Amino acid sequence: MSEKKEVSVLLAGGFGHAVWVFDEWMRDDAPVRLVGAVQTLPDEKLDGFLAHPWAQKFTPSIYQELEEALAVEKPDLVVVSTRPDLNPDLIEKSLRAGCHVISEKPLAVDEAGLRRLHAAVQETGRYILPMLGMHEVPAFAEARELVEQGVIGEPVLLNARKSYQWGTRADWFKQRETYGGIWGWVGIHSFNHAAHIIGRNAVKVLAAQEQNCFHPEYGPGCSDCLSGLFLLEGGVQMTVSIDLLRPDGQKAWGDDWVRIVGSEGSLEANPELGTIRLIRKGHDEEVRNVTAVAPSFYTAFLDTVENNADFSQLTALGFQLTDSVLIAELASIKGFRDLDVNPRRWELS
Amino acid sequence: MSEKKEVSVLLAGGFGHAVWVFDEWMRDDAPVRLVGAVQTLPDEKLDGFLAHPWAQKFTPSIYQELEEALAVEKPDLVVVSTRPDLNPDLIEKSLRAGCHVISEKPLAVDEAGLRRLHAAVQETGRYILPMLGMHEVPAFAEARELVEQGVIGEPVLLNARKSYQWGTRADWFKQRETYGGIWGWVGIHSFNHAAHIIGRNAVKVLAAQEQNCFHPEYGPGCSDCLSGLFLLEGGVQMTVSIDLLRPDGQKAWGDDWVRIVGSEGSLEANPELGTIRLIRKGHDEEVRNVTAVAPSFYTAFLDTVENNADFSQLTALGFQLTDSVLIAELASIKGFRDLDVNPRRWELS
Repeated sequence: MSEKKEVSVLLAGGFGHAVWVFDEWMRDDAPVRLVGAVQTLPDEKLDGFLAHPWAQKFTPSIYQELEEALAVEKPDLVVVSTRPDLNPDLIEKSLRAGCHVISEKPLAVDEAGLRRLHAAVQETGRYILPMLGMHEVPAFAEARELVEQGVIGEPVLLNARKSYQWGTRADWFKQRETYGGIWGWVGIHSFNHAAHIIGRNAVKVLAAQEQNCFHPEYGPGCSDCLSGLFLLEGGVQMTVSIDLLRPDGQKAWGDDWVRIVGSEGSLEANPELGTIRLIRKGHDEEVRNVTAVAPSFYTAFLDTVENNADFSQLTALGFQLTDSVLIAELASIKGFRDLDVNPRRWELS
Repeated sequence: MSEKKEVSVLLAGGFGHAVWVFDEWMRDDAPVRLVGAVQTLPDEKLDGFLAHPWAQKFTPSIYQELEEALAVEKPDLVVVSTRPDLNPDLIEKSLRAGCHVISEKPLAVDEAGLRRLHAAVQETGRYILPMLGMHEVPAFAEARELVEQGVIGEPVLLNARKSYQWGTRADWFKQRETYGGIWGWVGIHSFNHAAHIIGRNAVKVLAAQEQNCFHPEYGPGCSDCLSGLFLLEGGVQMTVSIDLLRPDGQKAWGDDWVRIVGSEGSLEANPELGTIRLIRKGHDEEVRNVTAVAPSFYTAFLDTVENNADFSQLTALGFQLTDSVLIAELASIKGFRDLDVNPRRWELS
């Protein structure tokens, strides 16, 4: 990208993973500057995000209304990182103001919100990069490389898990409709494993279930234990296990893991242990330390501004992943079974 | 048990895991002798089993008919290890001849066969010990101990996998009705993990799926990739992943694994690596080498003969596990969903 102009960024929201974006921009010394920050809820604190070393380099103006910030600052890019039910409105306004958007997932908490965003992207030609937080993980980058190299042959089975600490949760996790439930908030990563590492989206939710086992104060709105069974494109089977029962106080927040079985072998990628366990035809089994370096993700997205880079595929992925978890949530909560998912409907022409 | 009398054993069949039984009896120098062996199919070879060092110590008579062998040898115990569809007939005849039985799993390939055996056990007061092949695995024994000690608190989630080599398979694996399908043949171990390690049986099959991906010569009768979603007693969720895609030629035949998440932490038991990964509240995560020694299983069963030991619980477990996989098979093949399983119906009064 051109070094001549800095990309101007507006931050909308004070919750979520915007710091991942800031981390990467700081690491890459990216030509980008923070021009403003918007409170998206009356009592929302922006202090956490603005205390980040990257944000500290700037003196952003603070706004209470996105429209005003967009009109005054005319940013190139908006980072939306807040309670997920607010995403569709914030994202659509940003797109229609001519901005590209990096947004917390899920992009919407219902299908109507997702369709609204899909239409807005098609009408504006602007892109949405979802904060997936997996593309930057070296163990998953290495798994993806191994699969691409054909080391385990044709993948047919994927086991994914997310295990997080419960930690301190905002009160609104008690209301499923404000954040989309744990399938949307956490389960989305499992579908992203599948899409990112083996290039397959979900086509069927066979079944899903969830319970709040040990956090009754968060009621049925926030489950701490979930599991599901899925079918991906190309007949790949997927099991998903999610828990928010990792003991608080562990060094790493999460304990992700993915296992992929193919025609020529299998691999298990464990980011926290920093290992790939690889079982290949004709080789002794090995547990290797991860050496891959994940490519830039949020820095690469700046190219949309400078060089009209095409991010239609990752934008569609955000829709596809959100759609998958909304349907998983239906299976999990309503007990619906064998629900079809159509990843093609979100493709961008 | 008394050292005075040897338990006399009749072997019925030439296929399966009878060698596990022989291994343990030899290791324990158990007071037991092989008096006869029965061909259960016209072309069945017994050579493999009879070449085992334990069997080599004896000169068993060879029979073509179980009835004749039972009448002539009057054994105390029969080891049934053959094509699973033959199990109900062989087991029932043995029970009614007054013998206790150690049998290959699944105990039956349909519900009628299972009910027949349940009635025979109740009427004869004899027991059936299923060859589960998991109770003897040190990593699972250690996992069970840790759970019993409350190290991970109250279990609420279990992820189980079986990964086997395809190897050389008898032709009858092409016909599901002869062996009960891969849920019955392999999937049963996952339900046994749950029963053995955390003491929970299945109460619901939410969904299951299976495919033959890379072994078309075995048609749809033998799948090489399966997955399922279950609910166990006490609201415990379970995911199961099964594949017969472990590359042929690996040192170990199988690559089992189980992960259990509880209120106070989680553990992963990996028999092949010989490790338990343990994550506990207030402790650093650790990967420890397994040190547990599994208790005797088949040797302990000899006590039924000498001391009328009560094996009703393990006998009921064989029924419960078989019932669970027969129902999983229905979900997998017929597409049925949310099938109830009632472990209580197999309890022995």
